[in-house]
Amino acid sequence: MSKPLNIGLIGTGFMGRAHSNAYRKVSNFFKLPYHPVLKAVCARSADKVKDFAETWGYESTETDWKTLISRKDIDAIDICTPNNNHAEIAIAAAQAGKIILCEKPLAMNGPEGLKMVEAVEKAKVPNIVWYNYRRVPAVTLAKKLIEEGRLGKIFHYRAKFLQDWTISPELPQGGAGLWRLDVAASGSGVSGDLLAHCIDTALWLNGSLDTISAMTETFIKERKHTLTGKTEKVGIDDACIFMGRFKNGSLANFESTRYARGHKALYTFEINGENASIAWDLHDLHRLQYFDYKDEGKLRGWKSIHVTDAGGDHPYMDKWWVPGLSIGYEHSFVHQVADFLESLGSGKPAMPDFRDAYRTQLVLDAITESAKTGKWEKVESA
Amino acid sequence: MSKPLNIGLIGTGFMGRAHSNAYRKVSNFFKLPYHPVLKAVCARSADKVKDFAETWGYESTETDWKTLISRKDIDAIDICTPNNNHAEIAIAAAQAGKIILCEKPLAMNGPEGLKMVEAVEKAKVPNIVWYNYRRVPAVTLAKKLIEEGRLGKIFHYRAKFLQDWTISPELPQGGAGLWRLDVAASGSGVSGDLLAHCIDTALWLNGSLDTISAMTETFIKERKHTLTGKTEKVGIDDACIFMGRFKNGSLANFESTRYARGHKALYTFEINGENASIAWDLHDLHRLQYFDYKDEGKLRGWKSIHVTDAGGDHPYMDKWWVPGLSIGYEHSFVHQVADFLESLGSGKPAMPDFRDAYRTQLVLDAITESAKTGKWEKVESA
Amino acid sequence: MSKPLNIGLIGTGFMGRAHSNAYRKVSNFFKLPYHPVLKAVCARSADKVKDFAETWGYESTETDWKTLISRKDIDAIDICTPNNNHAEIAIAAAQAGKIILCEKPLAMNGPEGLKMVEAVEKAKVPNIVWYNYRRVPAVTLAKKLIEEGRLGKIFHYRAKFLQDWTISPELPQGGAGLWRLDVAASGSGVSGDLLAHCIDTALWLNGSLDTISAMTETFIKERKHTLTGKTEKVGIDDACIFMGRFKNGSLANFESTRYARGHKALYTFEINGENASIAWDLHDLHRLQYFDYKDEGKLRGWKSIHVTDAGGDHPYMDKWWVPGLSIGYEHSFVHQVADFLESLGSGKPAMPDFRDAYRTQLVLDAITESAKTGKWEKVESA
Amino acid sequence: MSKPLNIGLIGTGFMGRAHSNAYRKVSNFFKLPYHPVLKAVCARSADKVKDFAETWGYESTETDWKTLISRKDIDAIDICTPNNNHAEIAIAAAQAGKIILCEKPLAMNGPEGLKMVEAVEKAKVPNIVWYNYRRVPAVTLAKKLIEEGRLGKIFHYRAKFLQDWTISPELPQGGAGLWRLDVAASGSGVSGDLLAHCIDTALWLNGSLDTISAMTETFIKERKHTLTGKTEKVGIDDACIFMGRFKNGSLANFESTRYARGHKALYTFEINGENASIAWDLHDLHRLQYFDYKDEGKLRGWKSIHVTDAGGDHPYMDKWWVPGLSIGYEHSFVHQVADFLESLGSGKPAMPDFRDAYRTQLVLDAITESAKTGKWEKVESA
Repeated sequence: MSKPLNIGLIGTGFMGRAHSNAYRKVSNFFKLPYHPVLKAVCARSADKVKDFAETWGYESTETDWKTLISRKDIDAIDICTPNNNHAEIAIAAAQAGKIILCEKPLAMNGPEGLKMVEAVEKAKVPNIVWYNYRRVPAVTLAKKLIEEGRLGKIFHYRAKFLQDWTISPELPQGGAGLWRLDVAASGSGVSGDLLAHCIDTALWLNGSLDTISAMTETFIKERKHTLTGKTEKVGIDDACIFMGRFKNGSLANFESTRYARGHKALYTFEINGENASIAWDLHDLHRLQYFDYKDEGKLRGWKSIHVTDAGGDHPYMDKWWVPGLSIGYEHSFVHQVADFLESLGSGKPAMPDFRDAYRTQLVLDAITESAKTGKWEKVESA
Repeated sequence: MSKPLNIGLIGTGFMGRAHSNAYRKVSNFFKLPYHPVLKAVCARSADKVKDFAETWGYESTETDWKTLISRKDIDAIDICTPNNNHAEIAIAAAQAGKIILCEKPLAMNGPEGLKMVEAVEKAKVPNIVWYNYRRVPAVTLAKKLIEEGRLGKIFHYRAKFLQDWTISPELPQGGAGLWRLDVAASGSGVSGDLLAHCIDTALWLNGSLDTISAMTETFIKERKHTLTGKTEKVGIDDACIFMGRFKNGSLANFESTRYARGHKALYTFEINGENASIAWDLHDLHRLQYFDYKDEGKLRGWKSIHVTDAGGDHPYMDKWWVPGLSIGYEHSFVHQVADFLESLGSGKPAMPDFRDAYRTQLVLDAITESAKTGKWEKVESA
Repeated sequence: MSKPLNIGLIGTGFMGRAHSNAYRKVSNFFKLPYHPVLKAVCARSADKVKDFAETWGYESTETDWKTLISRKDIDAIDICTPNNNHAEIAIAAAQAGKIILCEKPLAMNGPEGLKMVEAVEKAKVPNIVWYNYRRVPAVTLAKKLIEEGRLGKIFHYRAKFLQDWTISPELPQGGAGLWRLDVAASGSGVSGDLLAHCIDTALWLNGSLDTISAMTETFIKERKHTLTGKTEKVGIDDACIFMGRFKNGSLANFESTRYARGHKALYTFEINGENASIAWDLHDLHRLQYFDYKDEGKLRGWKSIHVTDAGGDHPYMDKWWVPGLSIGYEHSFVHQVADFLESLGSGKPAMPDFRDAYRTQLVLDAITESAKTGKWEKVESA
Repeated sequence: MSKPLNIGLIGTGFMGRAHSNAYRKVSNFFKLPYHPVLKAVCARSADKVKDFAETWGYESTETDWKTLISRKDIDAIDICTPNNNHAEIAIAAAQAGKIILCEKPLAMNGPEGLKMVEAVEKAKVPNIVWYNYRRVPAVTLAKKLIEEGRLGKIFHYRAKFLQDWTISPELPQGGAGLWRLDVAASGSGVSGDLLAHCIDTALWLNGSLDTISAMTETFIKERKHTLTGKTEKVGIDDACIFMGRFKNGSLANFESTRYARGHKALYTFEINGENASIAWDLHDLHRLQYFDYKDEGKLRGWKSIHVTDAGGDHPYMDKWWVPGLSIGYEHSFVHQVADFLESLGSGKPAMPDFRDAYRTQLVLDAITESAKTGKWEKVESA
């Protein structure tokens, strides 16, 4: 029989909702060794956290995360706070022997990330970071195709994450919903928020990056700060481009921005191999584009695979509806919870764990450095 | 405060799951006057229904729907059985004063449907039929654009529902998962299963059909029957095409089939008006295609609207995630539950109720008749 | 060495230009037994025909087609007049022993078409009808795939030709450029103009039609007539839908209209076979969509084949540029001329000849009859 | 009346054909002050040049370009040779007072390009470089939209030119058809061949580049050389990526490669402005993608404009067929000839002339330098 796993969630924003939804749904669709129990949710505002608990069915609330961590009835801590709190909470949770699920990016920078890795490894607690896009079925299928060796030698890996929601200079920085524009809370702009996703997927699909050269830009230099009420310098990067070389010899071209008018959340990647190529985009996340040079000459073309087969062909899809009926963004979180609960049973860690996510942090560090120096930088090994 | 609505679900197949999921999620995302309580689920197999209840969190189980209907603690009966049981259950439920949510198509045919309409109207119980596609945000947006008068006089309405899952002659008919191939259980093939959806949307978006001419085909004449073990005549239509005239003067071209290799569940419609046109397809359900002739000449083109804006522009989407992040098939059921619960509070019926769904039944009757006679048939008024 | 073929062109409208361009280009790209010589062009207006001859490099002009036909230095007559003149000119040209290239549709109706067939067969003159879409490389590739047996048993053939250029009631009928709206000159509206193309391709790709049921509509009942200056009844069909059965057992669904807002010239077809499906559309004419069920399960999807390979894989494309560089609408005419000149050398007729095009005429006759009677009609055999 | 312009073409490869076709067609479709006369064609092989002259209708042939240039009956020299001959021929032609049309890239490098610019400016001869993509109607429309100020401040310009034809290590370098792989003949690989197009369009649409950082890669280090018969080092770049800043503050992200499996000739660009965005790709060259934030909120989306309106709305398209019917790659050359002939009449130079094309050369020089040094480089001003 399935055992309970008591969740203590910290943070009630967008990610708090996405994770709660995943916890609530996973046992309806997956047969797993554990089932999540919504034991407690924590946020600074007593009113807001009560409202959230009621909406989502949490049994109790806390307003101090330290109290939450000290509770004996909590098995796992889920960290959905702004980036600048990840390390402190995670390290304390590890020391308290809690299982940890941490939102991405892992940390504000590499050294901070390393401390978190060391804490969980020392405490030997299961841990995972919410790079959810690995578990969009089309992306998981891409991984499978690569592992089967279909692409051959890789020549190119391209990724972009394009948004357009910060173009207005009237948009303030800081505070609820806008902490991503406040460098003190976020650590960086599009690089930590969006490129981090692109990098996580890339390292997973294509291995380590060797060297990179990056540039960043802050188009709007000053914005009103919600917390101070004053117009203050913007410390984040609005856009970031980097090129580089992977250790397998392929070339990297990455870009993210919040100034690409017309794109709401267009995360795309494309991989060109000797024998085959793959492309994907988040706006039509249930489709995988695939080109295979081994196809008969006159029939070669890019195939649009609707990754919705329920008969076992397509990852995760046997758990949902019938062929052709799509699932959405939220399901990637359900899949991550499912895999994580499975890993608790099997003892085989689900990825990306903290150490794996730390590798993304090291790429981000190299980007920051290169954007500052204008030089090519070596990406450190984790 | 939100009041409980005790649900009694009958049927634990694909639709039983889809509805259960909707009941479980709706209160997490919508603020409503009622919240569904999963009170009881009913199916003939005691083992299966227990398993289902456990998976989905139903408080109790029944194996006889008559017992379920007689229970005082049940407010609403949700009918997810094969089509041939809809009428009997619905009429009994109405007589018992229950709120009724009935899967589509409403009935095996028009006369049966009429009895169901009369039963609920006599009993004055709230009722609705699960034509869920009306509440895909892109489709709801289409309705809004039409109501705003953007299309002008309508010339053409085209709809198709194409699948390819019954091409193999080895596929048997009848029994769990395959009752849709057994005319005794389903009443018809693609017309009642797939075209019914197309017709419901069309009547909603474009008004009544006046006359039609139809053809049907059964490509595979005999299949093994799961229940009898014998090869038996196939009584359903494998494919159905009809053309016709709407009362507003526009031409109808409708088709559905389960023999369109390459299409899993491709429900599409397109409406051509004097000033603008609209197109949609279920395989990319979060997109609406829109062409407006009033656009400046050199800039005219089909616009692909990613119906995922969370700021209020796009129906239902303010309840979910952030712009660009898609929802899936299952969410149309959540929206239907939300609208229905809202209607219980306001007293303003949510559509399609039984009478509205009966109109689709009358079109299906005309199709059946025309396919038999080879003549144009008048569609009766509801 | 290549021999000259002296062309006498009748008609200087849209098709006169398209054919002239094809004659001028074909020898630059194809090695053929004959090369066209632009010997003479004929039109009623002496000024216009001179201007046309100068623009296109015709050696001489005529204003009476009978004179043109009587000229000894003319080998081939190309008929680009409105439909109501095809028969008279073609029969006279046949009697004069001329090779004939006739614009589509062949005739105003079946009986007229039959006389034309009899005339060319009696005179034993090479003849062809300009159903140019057969020779768009993507369409030719479709034919090849079907001939290779890749689709298996065919279940469905769907075709549409959608335009939107006659929606305005201010548009007059009749006269230069508008004779297609004048039933006296055109014989019919969208059926003869647009559906004729769809039918020609269908008969070529899928064999004969057996029975059909059709409807037509004239949305705008009266238009000013350019020739009389008066508002007169519109005699053409603005839209036409028919459904039917092919002799191979597949179902037909055809539609054409000039009232589909947003579509300029959207000729599309889709064929669903047991094993594979094919789709094409004229707006992106260099692409063929192909789905093959024999592909490995997880990789099944619609392939978008960019039919521009120059290495021999794609029909005609070795004659043009390099892979990836597209050709356009006009090239289908060049290909038709090339194949026709080749056929003059080989003696193996290029299709569709008059008899082949007459089959399309018989389908059009059945459509007209069915639209009038409201009954299913048998398509006569040619 | 239109005056003759006697053309002397040098080179009979792919571009020799494309230009010849343009000269032959332009007067059929455009009314211009000059009409090209195919006076002479020149190539080293007497046999080949004769064959070419016959195919295309050139009046005479030469095997020495110096002789061609010295001919009094030649008005304009068209240079279609490999890149390493451009400068010598162009300078000699300028000194002989000939009008010059030169294939792109202008030169092997900036200094050589400057000499060519000085030569034509000193000689005061009309001159143009064949960056043909400016005159694809969709691209010309993009220019128009930018000039109308629809995009507002520009944030991003992205361009890629992806091919896959040199992946096989068996492909030799050098000789007819393969000189692009031989650095002695081409000067560079994808940067001069493909990126040059991207840069030309970018400078035209978005103004000057300020600084760039580039990387290049040669995936296959050695190939057999057709001329020497030996395996020799490959001197060209197989792939090139650069990022940079335009003078208007927007960020550049450019990439070209011949190792992107699945892409035959995928030239794409996208421009993101404050108010609107534009995207285009060569594989579907008749479409322009356009997103306008000023559209009503619920209707915002990317519009696919089929740039085929013949009524004056779309550049050049009034000269061709009817709306919806596409033209192809070759037509961009026809348009360039038309504009150039028009410019000879008006005296207003058609762009890009040598000086304009020299600016692209300076970007290429900066790319080469940056790829070597690993540093950011300033792009020099022309």
